[in-house]
Amino acid sequence: MKIDLDNLLAGKMRTLSKAITLSESKKVEHQAEAQSLIESILPHTGKSIRIGISGTPGVGKSTFIESLGVHLINKGHKVAVLAIDPSSPLSGGSILGDKTRMEKLSQLENAFIRPTPTSGTLGGVAQKTREAMLLCEAAGFDIILIETVGVGQSEFEVADMVDFFTVLLLPGGGDELQGIKKGIIEISDCILINKSEGENLNRAQTTQREYLSALHIMHNDDQWNTKVELISAIESAGLDNYWSLVNEFIDQSKESGFLDNKRVNQNKKWLNSLFFEFIKNRVDNNPALQTEWKKAESNIEDNQATPFAAAKKMIDLLFT
Amino acid sequence: MKIDLDNLLAGKMRTLSKAITLSESKKVEHQAEAQSLIESILPHTGKSIRIGISGTPGVGKSTFIESLGVHLINKGHKVAVLAIDPSSPLSGGSILGDKTRMEKLSQLENAFIRPTPTSGTLGGVAQKTREAMLLCEAAGFDIILIETVGVGQSEFEVADMVDFFTVLLLPGGGDELQGIKKGIIEISDCILINKSEGENLNRAQTTQREYLSALHIMHNDDQWNTKVELISAIESAGLDNYWSLVNEFIDQSKESGFLDNKRVNQNKKWLNSLFFEFIKNRVDNNPALQTEWKKAESNIEDNQATPFAAAKKMIDLLFT
Repeated sequence: MKIDLDNLLAGKMRTLSKAITLSESKKVEHQAEAQSLIESILPHTGKSIRIGISGTPGVGKSTFIESLGVHLINKGHKVAVLAIDPSSPLSGGSILGDKTRMEKLSQLENAFIRPTPTSGTLGGVAQKTREAMLLCEAAGFDIILIETVGVGQSEFEVADMVDFFTVLLLPGGGDELQGIKKGIIEISDCILINKSEGENLNRAQTTQREYLSALHIMHNDDQWNTKVELISAIESAGLDNYWSLVNEFIDQSKESGFLDNKRVNQNKKWLNSLFFEFIKNRVDNNPALQTEWKKAESNIEDNQATPFAAAKKMIDLLFT
Repeated sequence: MKIDLDNLLAGKMRTLSKAITLSESKKVEHQAEAQSLIESILPHTGKSIRIGISGTPGVGKSTFIESLGVHLINKGHKVAVLAIDPSSPLSGGSILGDKTRMEKLSQLENAFIRPTPTSGTLGGVAQKTREAMLLCEAAGFDIILIETVGVGQSEFEVADMVDFFTVLLLPGGGDELQGIKKGIIEISDCILINKSEGENLNRAQTTQREYLSALHIMHNDDQWNTKVELISAIESAGLDNYWSLVNEFIDQSKESGFLDNKRVNQNKKWLNSLFFEFIKNRVDNNPALQTEWKKAESNIEDNQATPFAAAKKMIDLLFT
């Protein structure tokens, strides 16, 4: 699979698609090609605003992303949407494969929409999406929206690769919030209360107040105070306000050096987790070690052994 | 170092001290002895209530632990206090080495107070404290209080080895809360607002209300709703109330099976982290790998390489 670097840097969509497909390939020779491609485009990356968008199904995430994408493209931006959907097979998947969810956006010339398949790739969800993000940046996209449905640890992984992490909620606390995992609010730079329209408006304002006061109590070690804003994705209301918040954050953290620092730390953390991912892969593919691990767990359950001796034994199995 | 098992199980304090010293020894032959000792006492462990107590310096943690300890011993319990202080050297340390902080408690027959040295031990802070906890249980202590000053990740490690995690705060939000790390409130089963006495009382009640409403918003996936209570450690006020909360939690989670389940999961997690701790130890002691790691980080900072290739190279260095 030959990727024409000039075409990629010129922003040819077909080349970009092909490059991402290459990076997603499970063939060993493709992976080597993809890595060398990505190394070669590195000087052309890093210039976009990277935004993570999370929220449970039904919160209106795709409507929001479509509205925001159209809004930003009308302002002259090039917008790439990468969707992390652990359930989607390589061939397409449930999230965005058919593009029907974002019909308007997908028809625009300066939009690029792509789900990330994740099954069985080393580095998990994060690795392929990071690579796709870098490829999109090289192709001239200046805004990358990374969507996650929140299966497993994907929100935390996305938060570790973006500049600005946004979570969408619905008006009204209680029941609707059941789907939000512990810790998501803490990693969010902005909470958007969607469907804040018509009859929902009062409830949305109450929810906003509640979150603001909860954040006031719980948050305290950040450079940036998490914002809580009302939007109506379906009416495209609140998008300008949201976008100026994003810019305020970016300007502020560029000036303070916080953004550069954040990205360097994200990359170091990525190095570390990839390293241990490789090790986990060896562990998973070592049958003797797997047997020992299961035995150790069952001994622990029966209170017949402590983990120390078991861990030591498993290490010997890994390194022989 | 010969440990008399009968004396340990009979609750002889000198034997218990000696056993913990053995488990803390860095000599290889002592470590083997300690591991076999701990395996042999396993059937006699697990019968205590394990409580973690966290809070920033100045919050009144040691006064609280002393009051609580005396209170519980007067009720007929045997109370062990293990303190995690990463800064304390093996010989004694800043936290509890001289026992002056808990003078009244340390004079009682049914109290045992011991700081855990952590420097250079495999498994870090957690490993030695877990072993000390098991030894105390074997010696008949039915309540284990594990104190942490909150350096590094120690609160999270303690939360992973206890049944009930308590954090102490001061009345009045804002400034005083600066020391609380993100995520601590989320892992707490109980928040105690200390120094809720005299002039502080009003402020303490406001703080209580604020936390309750914040928890109402942020918490949602637990079996147990985190409690927020007022205490005055110095006046020994609120101890009965606290202790009945602990018992409510224990009774409830014993009945539902939640407690057994929690302990088994803690042990499995412990196995996993010990395993990776052993690997980290090998990484740290591999000079070629260390050099490569530093080179990789600096290449990443200069945007000249992606972590993928570097991680792969480092894995080869680890396994050859």
